[in-house]
Amino acid sequence: MTAAPPKLARDAFREDVRPEDAAAVRALAAATGFFSESEADIAEELVLERLRLGEAGGYFFLFADAGDGPAEYALAGYACYGPTPGTNGCFDLYWIVVAPDGQGRGLGRGLLAAAEDRIRERGGRKVIVETSSRPLYAKTRAFYDKTGYLAEAVIADFYDAGDAKIIFTKTLG
Amino acid sequence: MTAAPPKLARDAFREDVRPEDAAAVRALAAATGFFSESEADIAEELVLERLRLGEAGGYFFLFADAGDGPAEYALAGYACYGPTPGTNGCFDLYWIVVAPDGQGRGLGRGLLAAAEDRIRERGGRKVIVETSSRPLYAKTRAFYDKTGYLAEAVIADFYDAGDAKIIFTKTLG
Repeated sequence: MTAAPPKLARDAFREDVRPEDAAAVRALAAATGFFSESEADIAEELVLERLRLGEAGGYFFLFADAGDGPAEYALAGYACYGPTPGTNGCFDLYWIVVAPDGQGRGLGRGLLAAAEDRIRERGGRKVIVETSSRPLYAKTRAFYDKTGYLAEAVIADFYDAGDAKIIFTKTLG
Repeated sequence: MTAAPPKLARDAFREDVRPEDAAAVRALAAATGFFSESEADIAEELVLERLRLGEAGGYFFLFADAGDGPAEYALAGYACYGPTPGTNGCFDLYWIVVAPDGQGRGLGRGLLAAAEDRIRERGGRKVIVETSSRPLYAKTRAFYDKTGYLAEAVIADFYDAGDAKIIFTKTLG
């Protein structure tokens, strides 16, 4: 059994996006060892897209800052979500990343709960998260299992032969 | 039982994309009655994206021309496909549309078979098509059923409450 997640204040995360976040997000993704270079590119690109287009671009962020100022600008973690194109009420959780030294301390759960709150406020009915069936992602899958997500669908041989996409979903109450 | 689809020549469809195709694709989507205004917008946008970025944009087309010249420029049907981002060997079939007066004559099957050929040539292992569970799309689902696609996954309440996404896939031999 795991303890209940710590209650983080609703304003515990920063929602405004700064130019420095592009590089910080890339560094964070690289530090975890979970993401390929091209995935880190995409993480950075979504920040740049948000800076270019604002909220109209459909990407929303929650940042957990680390460090004390620009001189040591870094992120302890972040989440990126947005309305699923072509749907009325589904939201994709595109990224949720926690720095290696911050894992196991409730930050991931805090980011996830805050993202779900924001999605509910924006009229979302359902959250969708996609992940891989590879052993590397066992902890990721366990994280969604224990936070109330259902592995609703599987597409075999998706990312590559033998590497399925697992689509976790949660219907928001 | 349905008869085998007519054998269409591999060069039966046009692959180069012309500026006139943007409006023609929109008109075709509207004529079918299957697509909303915002879906027709997306269909047109993919043509414009292809014209801007070329093949690097990741959208490929097969057009079945109708009419005899620019004065009556129109499409009998078209397909749009491309590599699924983040995957090694999956391809999305984004659109396959046949004009109402051309339906039931094998054009849809011809476009689908030609798209699968091209996907194979481009190194694709698997084709993915998404459609809705709504009664309006019963013929669409039947089309994929009889062309060798498997309803591999379902996401309930996706497009809207009560409107699921059905993910059809086909592994290419």
